[in-house]
Amino acid sequence: MSTTDTTAPITDDEVFTSHEGGKLTVETTMLLDSKRALSIAYTPGVAKVSRAIHEDPAAHATHTWASRLVVVLSDGTAVLGLGNIGAAASLPVMEGKSALFREFGGLNSIPLVIDTTDVDEIVETMVRLRPSFGAVNLEDVVAPRCFELEQKLIEALDCPVMHDDQHGTAVVVLAALTNAARLTGRSFADTRVVIAGAGAAGIAVADILHEAGIGDIILTDSQGTVHRDRDDLNAVKARVAGFTNRESVIGGISEALDGADVFVGVSSSKVPEEAVARMAPDSIVFALSNPDPEIMPEVAARHAAVVATGRSDFPNQINNVLAFPGIFRGALDAGARRITSAMKVAAATAIADTVGEDLSPDYIVPSPLDERVAADVAAAVIEAARQDGVTGEVG
Amino acid sequence: MSTTDTTAPITDDEVFTSHEGGKLTVETTMLLDSKRALSIAYTPGVAKVSRAIHEDPAAHATHTWASRLVVVLSDGTAVLGLGNIGAAASLPVMEGKSALFREFGGLNSIPLVIDTTDVDEIVETMVRLRPSFGAVNLEDVVAPRCFELEQKLIEALDCPVMHDDQHGTAVVVLAALTNAARLTGRSFADTRVVIAGAGAAGIAVADILHEAGIGDIILTDSQGTVHRDRDDLNAVKARVAGFTNRESVIGGISEALDGADVFVGVSSSKVPEEAVARMAPDSIVFALSNPDPEIMPEVAARHAAVVATGRSDFPNQINNVLAFPGIFRGALDAGARRITSAMKVAAATAIADTVGEDLSPDYIVPSPLDERVAADVAAAVIEAARQDGVTGEVG
Repeated sequence: MSTTDTTAPITDDEVFTSHEGGKLTVETTMLLDSKRALSIAYTPGVAKVSRAIHEDPAAHATHTWASRLVVVLSDGTAVLGLGNIGAAASLPVMEGKSALFREFGGLNSIPLVIDTTDVDEIVETMVRLRPSFGAVNLEDVVAPRCFELEQKLIEALDCPVMHDDQHGTAVVVLAALTNAARLTGRSFADTRVVIAGAGAAGIAVADILHEAGIGDIILTDSQGTVHRDRDDLNAVKARVAGFTNRESVIGGISEALDGADVFVGVSSSKVPEEAVARMAPDSIVFALSNPDPEIMPEVAARHAAVVATGRSDFPNQINNVLAFPGIFRGALDAGARRITSAMKVAAATAIADTVGEDLSPDYIVPSPLDERVAADVAAAVIEAARQDGVTGEVG
Repeated sequence: MSTTDTTAPITDDEVFTSHEGGKLTVETTMLLDSKRALSIAYTPGVAKVSRAIHEDPAAHATHTWASRLVVVLSDGTAVLGLGNIGAAASLPVMEGKSALFREFGGLNSIPLVIDTTDVDEIVETMVRLRPSFGAVNLEDVVAPRCFELEQKLIEALDCPVMHDDQHGTAVVVLAALTNAARLTGRSFADTRVVIAGAGAAGIAVADILHEAGIGDIILTDSQGTVHRDRDDLNAVKARVAGFTNRESVIGGISEALDGADVFVGVSSSKVPEEAVARMAPDSIVFALSNPDPEIMPEVAARHAAVVATGRSDFPNQINNVLAFPGIFRGALDAGARRITSAMKVAAATAIADTVGEDLSPDYIVPSPLDERVAADVAAAVIEAARQDGVTGEVG
C-alpha cells in the first residue's frame, strides 16, 4: 500500500491497517514457472552450486544472498521510547528497519528478534547462524549492555556489525555539526559540546566527536556532569570521562551549558531556556529526543544560531536513515570485515557534503528522503574501508 | 530472470548465472516515499503497534510478518545427494526451498543455515528466535539425528515444525499409492509394501503408510530386511520394526520383493530387474532416488502396472513440492500449533484427488507445476487441523 503526503494527522487506524500482516515480503529472483526453471533453482541444478561452495567457500559470497543480507537484531530491551517491551513487541520496529534497508540501501534485510537478554547467548546464536547473513544491524538494546554486546559481536563475527542507536545517531550528529560549525565559523578544536544523555547515543556521539577533533565535550546523565572524580560511573562512562570534561565542570545541565558552543540532547530530559541563553554567541542546539525535544526549536532559536531536532515537522531532522543504509551498503560493497571509526567519519562527511551550496541555518542536513545520500555515503565508506585495509575478498 | 521450457540441456553456465547474488529478495509492502509514510512505517507510528503487541501478544500474529513466515532450517549434514557438506554450502538449496514456499504456497520464507550439528544447540537457537517466525521447515539433516531434532523442535516450539525430507516425501508417496491402488484395484489392507531405505524418507513413508492402513510393510537397509530379531537397529528402526515385517522376512531386497505389491525406493541403491519380476501381478514401482532411480522406469514397466520416479523427465514425478507449500499454508491459515498425522494424511488425499478423472498409469500424481494443488492441500489441512483440535487463535 502507498501513502501520500497530506497534512492530515496520522490516525491509529491508518497505522494499524498499514501494519496488518507485517511490512515485508520475501520474493524470488527467478520465475519458477517451468520444469526447466525448477531444475535450475532447485534439484538437480542447485546441487552444482552447493558443491561449488563446498569446494570453494568464496562462492558462498557470490552465489547466495547471504553476503549482502543485513540482519536487524534486537532483544527488545530499549525500543524507541517504550523501553523494555520484549522481543516480540519490538518486531514491528525491526521490520520497519529492514524496509528502510531495502528502500534506501537497496539491500536485503531480515529482522531477527531474540528472546534472551544474555550477551553471550545472543553472540552464540549469531555465531551459529553466521553462514546465513552478511552483516548485523544491532537495534534497540539497552545501555550499558549494548556496548558489551556490540563489542563481543564484532569480535565473534568476521563481518560488519553496528549498533545503529549508537553509531547511526553519532554519524548524523557529526554531519550536522560539521555544517553548523561551517555556518557559525567555528573550528572543531575550539568548540565545546555538551551532550545530555550518557546512554547508547550519548556515548557514541562523544566518541565520534572526540575522534573528529572537537576541543572539549561534557556529558551529563541523571546525576549531572560526567567527570573523573565521580565514583558512580559504569565502565563505559568512566572510559569516556577519561577524555571529556577537561575542566572538570561539576553540576547540572545549566552549569555545563554555561558558555558552551553546542548542545546535543539525547536524553528525553528537559533543558530550560535560561540555560540555552547562557551558551556562547551563535550557539548550536540539537534537541534530538522524540517525540518531545529537550527544548522546543522555536524557543531555542531565540538564543541559538542553528537548531535541529529529530522530528520531521521541523527543519533539520537528524535521522539515522541518513547514515545506516549507506554505511552498510558501502561496507558490504567493499567486502569489509568490520566498520571502522574512519568509515563512520567518512559517512558523516559525505552526508554533510550532500547539502552543498544550499547550506543555511534551516538546511544543515539533507532530507531523509533524499535518494542521493545513501549512494554518496556508500562511496565514501568504500574508500575509507580500503584505506583502513579492512576489505576482504569482495563478494 | 526467467527461463523458458526448452529441450536443450541445462548448462553449468546457466545454473551458476541464475544463482549469482542468490535467489531471494526482501521487499516492503509499503512505499516509503514520503515523510508521512516513514512516520507510519517507522517512528513515531510504529511505536503504536509495538505498544499494542506489548499489551496484547495476539497482535504479534496479526501485525507482524512472523506468524506467516516459514524458516527453512538446515545444518547441511545431508544435502541432496551430496551428503554432509556443511551449513554454508547448503544455503543455495535452502534459498530454493524458500523460493518454492513463495511461488507455490504464497508464503514468506527465509533460509537459516546453522553451523552446529548438536541437536540441543539447534533447538536452543530456534527457541531464542521464536518471536521471529511462524513455522519451521527442517531440511537436509542426516538420519537418525533428524528424528530426534524434529521431535525436540516440535516439543520446544508451539508452532508447525516439519522435516520435509521425511514427511513431504511420505505425503506424496501416500498420494501416489492411493491412486496407484485405485488403478490396480487394491485395498490398502491387502497391500504389502517394500521400502528400500530406512533413513529419513524411508521411516516416514513406513509411518504414514501404517497410519493409512497398509496391510504389511517391509523396510530394507544396507544390512537387508529390518526385522525384530536384528540387534543392530537404532532406536528409530527398532520402533518401526515393531509394526512392520509381520512375517519376519529375512534377506535382501529380492527376498523382500517376492510377491510384494509395491516397491518404494528411497535408498540410492539398485534393484535388479529379476527382483521386480518376482513381485505380485500388476505391481507398483516407485523408484524415487535422484538422479539415478533404483531401477529405470522402462525396465520396471516390463513387469509393473504403475511406475513412478523422482525425476521430471519421466511420467509420475513424486516431488515434495506437491506437499510442503500446501501443508504449511494450511497449518498457518488454521493457526495450528503443530502438524498432526491426520493433517499429513489429509494432504495426501487432497493431492491424490487433484488427479480426478484423468487418472491413468502415467498420471497418478499432478504435475509439480499444477497451481491448484497447494490450495487444495491447504484446504484439506485446515479441515484436518480443526478436527484434530490443534488450532489456536487464528492469526
